[in-house]
Amino acid sequence: MRTWDTVAIIGVGLIGGSIGLALRERKLARRVIGIGRRRESLEKARARGCVDEITTSIAEGAKQASLIVVCTPVESIAQHVLEASEHCLGGALITDAGSTKAEIVAAAENLKEVRFVGSHPLAGSEKNGCDAASADLFEGRMVVVTGTENSEAEAVDAIEAFWQSLGASVLRMSPDDHDAALACTSHLPHLIASALAAATPEQLLPLTATGWQDTTRIAAGDAELWRQIFLANGASTLKALADFEKVLSRFRAALESADGTLLAELLAEGKRRRDAVGN
Amino acid sequence: MRTWDTVAIIGVGLIGGSIGLALRERKLARRVIGIGRRRESLEKARARGCVDEITTSIAEGAKQASLIVVCTPVESIAQHVLEASEHCLGGALITDAGSTKAEIVAAAENLKEVRFVGSHPLAGSEKNGCDAASADLFEGRMVVVTGTENSEAEAVDAIEAFWQSLGASVLRMSPDDHDAALACTSHLPHLIASALAAATPEQLLPLTATGWQDTTRIAAGDAELWRQIFLANGASTLKALADFEKVLSRFRAALESADGTLLAELLAEGKRRRDAVGN
Repeated sequence: MRTWDTVAIIGVGLIGGSIGLALRERKLARRVIGIGRRRESLEKARARGCVDEITTSIAEGAKQASLIVVCTPVESIAQHVLEASEHCLGGALITDAGSTKAEIVAAAENLKEVRFVGSHPLAGSEKNGCDAASADLFEGRMVVVTGTENSEAEAVDAIEAFWQSLGASVLRMSPDDHDAALACTSHLPHLIASALAAATPEQLLPLTATGWQDTTRIAAGDAELWRQIFLANGASTLKALADFEKVLSRFRAALESADGTLLAELLAEGKRRRDAVGN
Repeated sequence: MRTWDTVAIIGVGLIGGSIGLALRERKLARRVIGIGRRRESLEKARARGCVDEITTSIAEGAKQASLIVVCTPVESIAQHVLEASEHCLGGALITDAGSTKAEIVAAAENLKEVRFVGSHPLAGSEKNGCDAASADLFEGRMVVVTGTENSEAEAVDAIEAFWQSLGASVLRMSPDDHDAALACTSHLPHLIASALAAATPEQLLPLTATGWQDTTRIAAGDAELWRQIFLANGASTLKALADFEKVLSRFRAALESADGTLLAELLAEGKRRRDAVGN
């Protein structure tokens, strides 16, 4: 398994912190540098064992790294890739962990002489920060790697191998296909969960139980991170929402006409897809 | 704490089985009789320790019981209350565990000389059957008890005390208020979860992660049980759905106009209500 000399992680929260923990626990890097804006968060990440060294300067952190992983909110990623690319070692690889890909990849590929390949580990949570990080976060999880016709094959292979070395399975997709797919499997569910929570009258919250709690759990996620994701993937999310609303209309029609047969069909179809996933 | 001589449970699945386990573990009944249609399920419930004795005859099981708890699917409850009432001891109490209340209570209160008080323990699950039953299912959970102007105060008190003795908190509501509230906090979430699962293209299921899994978990619930619930509470569920769709429209408008401020507001409102509940 390929090991790295120095890996720099920009943004040491849940995802960045977990990458650091996994690299260190699996001895995949000689040194992991955590880069961030707030010294206090960095100190905490170091104390938790997520990184060996810390710095608030991207220039400083990037200049000795052979791999740089950008784990900041989606609106900042392209800018951080740019800054890192200006200082990193020749031949260094850069990837990210953003939940949207088309905008980020298009911006990053405009940079000259940078070997950037986009990634998205499907390992988010409603929890944030390196307190929630764990070395096995990627174990058995899926990571989408979004090489393009501009990518060097060797760079895509290396980024794929990087995620595999953390325990993940890798699926390759184009940035556009990724965004269309994740609109259905991640961004729409977040929107639905948030809308359901917001639509529940406050005085009825004591009457919620595990069903409501499961269905709305991800609405507790960081609102600012999700604002950025929805803005970056608005068109695909709208399309997924329209498809969802078609199913919702069929449920409405079944309720309005007290059509038990249609209700049974709709419920069976939902159950069939949910059962196919498990957990 | 009041103890019972003989408690009969009609329908020994997740809820009925858990009531039996709790009664026996807490020594709240001298004897628990499980009543059901299928001998095989009853044998399993007895083997698991949910009940002491079993019978496929409601007449047989009810005739020595001072408390009868009907835990069958909502469409069967009124009929089972009627059958039990024809055979139970004078002064016996009957309650149920149905997820809807107005129809059931109206039907059961038409019966003469029966002390029936409706209940709904908010302790459902996507799992079914007495395999999933546990003695602490009601510990810290909420049970709604729906006495009416026709109920004897003493009977309502006794049913309240019964659920409290299993570890639950009790909230008293009218059957109509219950159905309107649970449409928002339980029935609509199920509909949403099911619609979201059904709207997810099959080929994208490998790209789902914990967010989708949480949001759709209850869609794995028994489709037939839920068909009955939706038919019994269609009007209130439609009203809750209309309120949800208003929030969904605001999300759609925010995405269409790429309005980050409105998105942030909506996400913050969802998060605020979700955070208020915890877990």
